[in-house]
Amino acid sequence: MTTQQLTHQIKTKKSFLCIGLDVDLNKIPNYLLNEEDPIFAFNKAIIDATHHLAVAYKPNTAFYEAYGLKGWKSLEKTIHYLNENYPEIYTIADAKRGDIGNTSKMYAKAFLEDLGFDSVTVAPYMGKDSVEPFLSFQDKHTILLALTSNQGAFDFQTLSVNNQELYKQVLETSKTWDNSENLMYVVGATKAEYLQEIRHIIPENFLLVPGVGAQGGSLKEVCKYGMTKNIGLLINSSRGIIYASKERDFAQAAVIKAKELQQQMEAILIHAG
Amino acid sequence: MTTQQLTHQIKTKKSFLCIGLDVDLNKIPNYLLNEEDPIFAFNKAIIDATHHLAVAYKPNTAFYEAYGLKGWKSLEKTIHYLNENYPEIYTIADAKRGDIGNTSKMYAKAFLEDLGFDSVTVAPYMGKDSVEPFLSFQDKHTILLALTSNQGAFDFQTLSVNNQELYKQVLETSKTWDNSENLMYVVGATKAEYLQEIRHIIPENFLLVPGVGAQGGSLKEVCKYGMTKNIGLLINSSRGIIYASKERDFAQAAVIKAKELQQQMEAILIHAG
Repeated sequence: MTTQQLTHQIKTKKSFLCIGLDVDLNKIPNYLLNEEDPIFAFNKAIIDATHHLAVAYKPNTAFYEAYGLKGWKSLEKTIHYLNENYPEIYTIADAKRGDIGNTSKMYAKAFLEDLGFDSVTVAPYMGKDSVEPFLSFQDKHTILLALTSNQGAFDFQTLSVNNQELYKQVLETSKTWDNSENLMYVVGATKAEYLQEIRHIIPENFLLVPGVGAQGGSLKEVCKYGMTKNIGLLINSSRGIIYASKERDFAQAAVIKAKELQQQMEAILIHAG
Repeated sequence: MTTQQLTHQIKTKKSFLCIGLDVDLNKIPNYLLNEEDPIFAFNKAIIDATHHLAVAYKPNTAFYEAYGLKGWKSLEKTIHYLNENYPEIYTIADAKRGDIGNTSKMYAKAFLEDLGFDSVTVAPYMGKDSVEPFLSFQDKHTILLALTSNQGAFDFQTLSVNNQELYKQVLETSKTWDNSENLMYVVGATKAEYLQEIRHIIPENFLLVPGVGAQGGSLKEVCKYGMTKNIGLLINSSRGIIYASKERDFAQAAVIKAKELQQQMEAILIHAG
């Protein structure tokens, strides 16, 4: 999917909501455990109920790998279901990969080509040749970790290098890589005030923003500092939506939570004109 | 496996060789492609032929994920085969994972508990709470990326923070984490001269050293600066051993290459007394 198509979807749906599909068998309704593939059954119900309110879905691969072969199968079924039934939806493999060049090429092929995701999250620590193999895929995005939403972000990401924080150096350096127009960045909502300076470095690229909701970030603040004329934001919510209820009404409960966020987004989009 | 058990195995086998199982179907002998599971058939042959020369095997998960469900199955079969037939062998899931706490916990469980690896490689960018979930497993190791062997290592890892290179800060900071005695570190052989300073910061921890052979690093240099009284080194070679021949003699060719390295290691161990 191109950036333009994503922006078009956002403007049509009046939403820049991304729903994180981080499925933990201990947290889904018990009755689903009788299904042949409980994870896929859960995802399918969430997707069918919320697809008109969200523009993107983001399975975190850890939750699938944790269930071994079965989990990997659930991930395959989920991405295929999305691509077949809701081709307008933007899909993100939240994999946080990154390895030496020939290995990153294998990961890129696995997620962007074979599984057919629109994008994959990648860690920057190993530098240019660990990220460029992902960037070479046409109409796909590579979402680079910049400033994450966890406490550990302050261990290294905000240390000063070349008179600026490391995550800003990551932003600057990544702009020089081949096909850098295919980059998006992870920037946690828990540090919304950082977004102003981030936008000085990368005025156009989309940001994937976790940490609204469960982790305490403010949607309004994020939009105030991070929104561009092409919107440029995907706000992720996982637990706050998909685990809104552990009963048979879980999908309807997810709709209510997703709708709350979508309506806040719609108000912001109208206000932004 | 404990660190002591690993050192014992090294001293018994007179080898600190780790063989990287990075299986690419384009590079293995054609006749294996007729097998039901060509990747596992290849790994089994390599392991059976070289297990007396190596102390560790390291499948890079990218190569397995690239083949989807089938690849994941091959990975499971490979680790189970190792654990059942060669329980003395140390196993490394080269996964380079790292995510927020609850997600890292899922990865840690997947690799260390369910699959049963002795260790897993982890990226440091997201800091303490992304790594500690891995460290909490008893008699398991977490192998943190410090200074990698690729060109991109110079993009961020060697930038100066707090008057030292970032990778040294990673070493320093990681020592303060809970269960940090379970840490090992990835340090590329292509920068052997850096090992002296690295040993000032982490005098005891094992180092996993890629880049000897195909990537041009020198074994002697690495041992000169990196070896401890408990050896403290695992030298990885992947392509140089497993792709020594693309013919029916591939396992024997691997033995010759592994034996070359093992004998160099034996000489160094004798010399070190």
